[in-house]
Amino acid sequence: MPYVNIKVTKEGGLDGTGPTVEQKGELIKGVTDLLEKVLNKNPATTFVVIDEVALEDWGIGGLSVPEFRKL
Amino acid sequence: MPYVNIKVTKEGGLDGTGPTVEQKGELIKGVTDLLEKVLNKNPATTFVVIDEVALEDWGIGGLSVPEFRKL
Amino acid sequence: MPYVNIKVTKEGGLDGTGPTVEQKGELIKGVTDLLEKVLNKNPATTFVVIDEVALEDWGIGGLSVPEFRKL
Amino acid sequence: MPYVNIKVTKEGGLDGTGPTVEQKGELIKGVTDLLEKVLNKNPATTFVVIDEVALEDWGIGGLSVPEFRKL
Amino acid sequence: MPYVNIKVTKEGGLDGTGPTVEQKGELIKGVTDLLEKVLNKNPATTFVVIDEVALEDWGIGGLSVPEFRKL
Amino acid sequence: MPYVNIKVTKEGGLDGTGPTVEQKGELIKGVTDLLEKVLNKNPATTFVVIDEVALEDWGIGGLSVPEFRKL
Repeated sequence: MPYVNIKVTKEGGLDGTGPTVEQKGELIKGVTDLLEKVLNKNPATTFVVIDEVALEDWGIGGLSVPEFRKL
Repeated sequence: MPYVNIKVTKEGGLDGTGPTVEQKGELIKGVTDLLEKVLNKNPATTFVVIDEVALEDWGIGGLSVPEFRKL
Repeated sequence: MPYVNIKVTKEGGLDGTGPTVEQKGELIKGVTDLLEKVLNKNPATTFVVIDEVALEDWGIGGLSVPEFRKL
Repeated sequence: MPYVNIKVTKEGGLDGTGPTVEQKGELIKGVTDLLEKVLNKNPATTFVVIDEVALEDWGIGGLSVPEFRKL
Repeated sequence: MPYVNIKVTKEGGLDGTGPTVEQKGELIKGVTDLLEKVLNKNPATTFVVIDEVALEDWGIGGLSVPEFRKL
Repeated sequence: MPYVNIKVTKEGGLDGTGPTVEQKGELIKGVTDLLEKVLNKNPATTFVVIDEVALEDWGIGGLSVPEFRKL
């Protein structure tokens, strides 16, 4: 019954607008397999939710990502 | 002072693009009433936040929802 | 496939240390029934997670709950 | 290593569609400075994520924000 | 800069009180490696936070986990 | 109506077991004041929830914090 929330910045993928459907599929499968292997969790009741966050909405070092990357 | 976060897949409603405004209103009212009835929480300081998650961003059984539903 | 997170302050219940097991059961059932009724969601894949938050860890009006209640 | 999530309604800013990039920058800087000052946390490993929530998806007093503001 | 939150029930491990330190380490490493492999994310700025949830605080099928497992 | 969640590691404070009540009060006040100043949010409906996370439950660089700090 795990619930996993993955938050990543909305970038990368084929056109820079965020992970591709295939990449998201790999994340979902990878996390589910990991929880099955390590904690014997049932994939059928393992939820994974991916959130893509706009660069301006993610802060690190006191700056938004776009500003941080100008340093 | 409860804070309730409801995450649902972005589907259903009138045109399949997600819950209608009315349905969201029912969820907000229903959860608020429930917390008042069960725990005597004050509706005036009960927050409910609804997140709609794209089908490709929700994983179950190691697959995204669209892939899972092809099984 | 909804995921619902309910955060409440750690108070109330029989001895003031937080909701009872029965009250939590009522919250889980009530939210699950609500999602089934309003959005036809399958209870078997509806997750509800309850978090109890210590009063000193919850702020409102710029104060922790214990301080706020002294006003 | 703090992780701070700020959820606000999608309103305000210059055109009512939500906080401006500058306002988000102020929130990121303000929270990061606060954690450095109060808990001596390293800004370089302080994450701040801002979520803007549509008014219809935020409930208070058992109503969505638009309905609540009609009272 | 990913932030990953893993919520699991507080069970398993050596004495049934939840995942061991080693198992948590495996989850942290596995998720971090996965994000590096799939999305080329930098492990140095990948946060993973694990939450253990008491069985009575986790609901599925409209019941708490202990009640659900009596079915 | 902002909701702010601050997750910090369970360390520091007077005896290393986590932020003091006073420090938490400073965080609550600081975040609430910041949202009032930047976005004109009403403190009376600004929630701040602080989560303290055990060091072993927080991962960075693919390691738990205790392991990471041994590098």
